[in-house]
Amino acid sequence: MKVCTKLSTALFPCPVVMVSCIGLSGKPNIITLAWVGTVCSNPPMVGIGINPKRYSFRLIEETGEFVVNIPTKSIVKEVDFCGTVSGREVDKFTETRLTPYPSIKVRPPLIQECPINMECVLRNRILLGSHQLFIGEVILVHADENILDERGDINNTKIVPIAYNRREYWNLGERIGVHGFSKKPYDSSS
Amino acid sequence: MKVCTKLSTALFPCPVVMVSCIGLSGKPNIITLAWVGTVCSNPPMVGIGINPKRYSFRLIEETGEFVVNIPTKSIVKEVDFCGTVSGREVDKFTETRLTPYPSIKVRPPLIQECPINMECVLRNRILLGSHQLFIGEVILVHADENILDERGDINNTKIVPIAYNRREYWNLGERIGVHGFSKKPYDSSS
Repeated sequence: MKVCTKLSTALFPCPVVMVSCIGLSGKPNIITLAWVGTVCSNPPMVGIGINPKRYSFRLIEETGEFVVNIPTKSIVKEVDFCGTVSGREVDKFTETRLTPYPSIKVRPPLIQECPINMECVLRNRILLGSHQLFIGEVILVHADENILDERGDINNTKIVPIAYNRREYWNLGERIGVHGFSKKPYDSSS
Repeated sequence: MKVCTKLSTALFPCPVVMVSCIGLSGKPNIITLAWVGTVCSNPPMVGIGINPKRYSFRLIEETGEFVVNIPTKSIVKEVDFCGTVSGREVDKFTETRLTPYPSIKVRPPLIQECPINMECVLRNRILLGSHQLFIGEVILVHADENILDERGDINNTKIVPIAYNRREYWNLGERIGVHGFSKKPYDSSS
């Protein structure tokens, strides 16, 4: 039976990303976010929702640039740390020993330990309520060479990503289907 | 070593949701989307990116309402079907035998087989390129009674959600952390 439950964004599982940014002061910061999603395929764009009280908010406003870094299970503790501590008080690169790695087209550094890094330029922003949505165009994608297959595509079996599942971090289990595997006309018995 | 790879929204794992909508004609439709994310906590809001060529695009434009339904592993074939076939040609509720269930505040029906359903009202729309971002405020959340714990919260262990992992559907594995589990000062050895 259906019941009405607490009003919330009950969307899950979400991605969890580490966004690196840098203000005019030149000191880079990291903010972990789950309010993130792909919003457009061409040009590729991602949206990230950030509370204006967060330290990274001003940094992104100042430069109009950020990097979306995709973490893996091996750094889940660093992921959590960068989402629960403020860059006003802590130098997160120093504390976590994560490595800033030079970007090519934007000022914020990549996080070297994340196997995928997307350099983004801010294209739009909308204040929605508690959060402002920043929409960034992905202008360059970096990947660790050892997660690519022979065609240069990311190989899903060579990376252990993290899903954010209602305040919990989960790894993935197994593949249960591939886009397009259902056939028309639909036969529910097969 | 880092290499530059194909330009794309390499964000993963993403949620995959079934969005139900209804146009002025009154016939409901379902569109499966992975370009979806939470964009604001208060009020709770979700963003969904849809190509204007899609049949559901006009339906959402017409009523300004949609429902975000979260599917589970047991209907992954229906999920795929509703993302790869057009509602112009097929009545997806009929073909999949998924059950429309009355919403309370909006016109599009819930999908009964999805354990979580969020009634949404359109608050903003932005044409970004190949996709338009629709931002909906979540005004009512429905849940199957049997996935709630005694406090009325969704119990993560009672639901098997689907993650969209670069054109593949995956289930979740195991919990590897809880929000806030890292402690400050940071000790990478613990």
